Amino acid sequence: MAEVAPLGRRIAAEGVGAFFLFACVIGSGIMAQALSGGNDGVALLANTIATGAMLFVLITMLGPISGAHFNPAVTLVFTLRRELPWFDAGAYVAAQLAFGVLGAWVAHLMFDLPTLQLSVKTRTGLGQWVGEFVATFGLVMTILGTVKYKPQAVAASVGLYITAAYWFTSSTSFANPAITVARSLSDTFAGIAPHDVPMFIAAQLVGAVSATIVGSALFPPQK
Amino acid sequence: MAEVAPLGRRIAAEGVGAFFLFACVIGSGIMAQALSGGNDGVALLANTIATGAMLFVLITMLGPISGAHFNPAVTLVFTLRRELPWFDAGAYVAAQLAFGVLGAWVAHLMFDLPTLQLSVKTRTGLGQWVGEFVATFGLVMTILGTVKYKPQAVAASVGLYITAAYWFTSSTSFANPAITVARSLSDTFAGIAPHDVPMFIAAQLVGAVSATIVGSALFPPQK
Amino acid sequence: MAEVAPLGRRIAAEGVGAFFLFACVIGSGIMAQALSGGNDGVALLANTIATGAMLFVLITMLGPISGAHFNPAVTLVFTLRRELPWFDAGAYVAAQLAFGVLGAWVAHLMFDLPTLQLSVKTRTGLGQWVGEFVATFGLVMTILGTVKYKPQAVAASVGLYITAAYWFTSSTSFANPAITVARSLSDTFAGIAPHDVPMFIAAQLVGAVSATIVGSALFPPQK
Amino acid sequence: MAEVAPLGRRIAAEGVGAFFLFACVIGSGIMAQALSGGNDGVALLANTIATGAMLFVLITMLGPISGAHFNPAVTLVFTLRRELPWFDAGAYVAAQLAFGVLGAWVAHLMFDLPTLQLSVKTRTGLGQWVGEFVATFGLVMTILGTVKYKPQAVAASVGLYITAAYWFTSSTSFANPAITVARSLSDTFAGIAPHDVPMFIAAQLVGAVSATIVGSALFPPQK
Repeated sequence: MAEVAPLGRRIAAEGVGAFFLFACVIGSGIMAQALSGGNDGVALLANTIATGAMLFVLITMLGPISGAHFNPAVTLVFTLRRELPWFDAGAYVAAQLAFGVLGAWVAHLMFDLPTLQLSVKTRTGLGQWVGEFVATFGLVMTILGTVKYKPQAVAASVGLYITAAYWFTSSTSFANPAITVARSLSDTFAGIAPHDVPMFIAAQLVGAVSATIVGSALFPPQK
Repeated sequence: MAEVAPLGRRIAAEGVGAFFLFACVIGSGIMAQALSGGNDGVALLANTIATGAMLFVLITMLGPISGAHFNPAVTLVFTLRRELPWFDAGAYVAAQLAFGVLGAWVAHLMFDLPTLQLSVKTRTGLGQWVGEFVATFGLVMTILGTVKYKPQAVAASVGLYITAAYWFTSSTSFANPAITVARSLSDTFAGIAPHDVPMFIAAQLVGAVSATIVGSALFPPQK
Repeated sequence: MAEVAPLGRRIAAEGVGAFFLFACVIGSGIMAQALSGGNDGVALLANTIATGAMLFVLITMLGPISGAHFNPAVTLVFTLRRELPWFDAGAYVAAQLAFGVLGAWVAHLMFDLPTLQLSVKTRTGLGQWVGEFVATFGLVMTILGTVKYKPQAVAASVGLYITAAYWFTSSTSFANPAITVARSLSDTFAGIAPHDVPMFIAAQLVGAVSATIVGSALFPPQK
Repeated sequence: MAEVAPLGRRIAAEGVGAFFLFACVIGSGIMAQALSGGNDGVALLANTIATGAMLFVLITMLGPISGAHFNPAVTLVFTLRRELPWFDAGAYVAAQLAFGVLGAWVAHLMFDLPTLQLSVKTRTGLGQWVGEFVATFGLVMTILGTVKYKPQAVAASVGLYITAAYWFTSSTSFANPAITVARSLSDTFAGIAPHDVPMFIAAQLVGAVSATIVGSALFPPQK
């Protein structure tokens, strides 16, 4: 996933990807809740399928440019592994946040909702934090293992990992600090109250760093 | 996707593809609404899965002949990029419209509905138009990026992009002027009132042209 | 898909495939109806996903042996194209019928239902027959086009074609004379009354032969 | 799938895989039941999609290390085929059980449930046992046939086989002695009462051994 495209193009790719990914997560949540008649199982299924599909699409088309992180936790992992300079990482994260939040706002615009919102959905407690730790740990393990053994399957594997993780983790697997921020700005199906954001991000970062360490042992650099 | 099959065979491929794609969009909408007991979430899930699956199938088998557009907005993009002559583009669009409408009518025939119908479903407003702009912009970006970096994944990516876009855009992502016309001729789940068609098509074309411009910068011709 | 495995092994492959395919179609229909609380949309979604998944699995593992027909209409097509001798075709069809019906019976056994049943579900009328014609025409076109241009995608394309066809055709796409017979022996979700079988099979065979002719023109033997 | 990674790394891969697979099966069952408002069809769909997706992910990333069994029945098959020494097989099974049960417990922790549980869900009778026999027989046939003819498709095929088998077998396809034990320790959607475990495991082992024999004939060692 280390690419040599100029930084500007890589930042553009991270921005386009975060825009569509976050618009998809939030927009499909809005649509799903509106249509599913109170059955949250049907709503989460739709939200899951849309998110997993979009991840495949975006990683396939943008991975060759920027590595297709769309996620500060993933950017951190590659920086810790010295595959991305710290300066570039900062630019990545800025693009993920800025364009991701823009994606959330465009989702609101599409669904005739007020642009600026704050979620009031409480997501807290040990179970949820363990959920975010497990979700992010698994996401990073998936990326490291698949990049090593089947790089052409990364788009499918990441899309399908999140498909599973929306259901098997209690937090529905945010697993991404930038999307956690964007979701806090959306009082819709995918939202999270702002005061619950810090612990989610902390759990995600601990999960990502843990997976970096375990992944280095299980998937050592040279085969 | 530029192919050198004789124009007649390419037109036939566009016709067969539009026939099955449009019959699928409209037919699966009819079936889904009939079976889902008023739960529109379940209905749209079924409509989504059928449409995404059919796109994969048709692009896989017909892409090598005609490029598998089935969509005047996509044909416009390749014509603007000078990968398809204007004359051929006109023939493509005529086939998409003619065989696509035929597909809608055969869907009606299969479900014992009157062949000739006009939809009365209102789909209008800024949110919907932004939805069509975003949907088509994303579709064209997906095609341009995937054709450049992973041509063998175009069928999967386009199928999965539309899978996601049915849910994350407020308009359920028509993203295709020909299918917009065909849907206006079907007073069923997938329909759109004829007087709402022009703005949908305008938003789609603006989205397609915008993505052509942005795509030329993000995915430049030579790697 | 022409293979030179000994006829005995090819017949065994057709038998194993028909057994699992038919057990899957009928068994997943029983499970789906039992669990979906009267929402036939949910039931058909489950039936669809199980069938499409199983087709991918069986074609992937058995295609290299026998071509993975599991379907007399498909066997007829390859025989008409002179890619399979008539004698072998007869043996294929016998195995499809015998092991397919066995699969239906084992599905009954698994769900604690009487083994021997006759369906009483009426499936008749012009709309349904057009549905079966369209379903089988599209299935054969999918096979011929994909075998020609992307043979490695046949398992995915056939699985996804049937996924779509369960929803966009009014008959839920039997598209297979042998499975039509087996379904008539199961008074469950996937059943069809015996007296409605002949017209279904006739429509399927007309669809298959029509697609053989159109397919020869659209996908000519040498590229 | 025979790999020469050191036994320690292979055991670690089996452990990581069983942990995530079992946490996914049980966790997604809990989430699905909680959200689906009493519609078990929706709940099993979600459970199915999560499990199939996770299998693809884990087999893709861990298959190159250990063969990605996560299942004592599969380990037995490869041991009987003399592709895995008995000593290694014992270590595999111990890791599958230990880390798999840990996965179940972490699922409980994530969903704020008591860690230590025993299921009270009765799963017994001839139909269920035939279901487990068929489910495991088909799983092993899928593995043997796909490893032989399309090794790069094993992750997709196993994921999709289980997707189908959750629906077409009456037992929802445990098909894995270790997961059967882990499920008995979870009084949730995916559970099974401990006294019903032995017959499930017996049926699974008979299915696995039968498929080893049939598979040796249908998929002989040298092509």
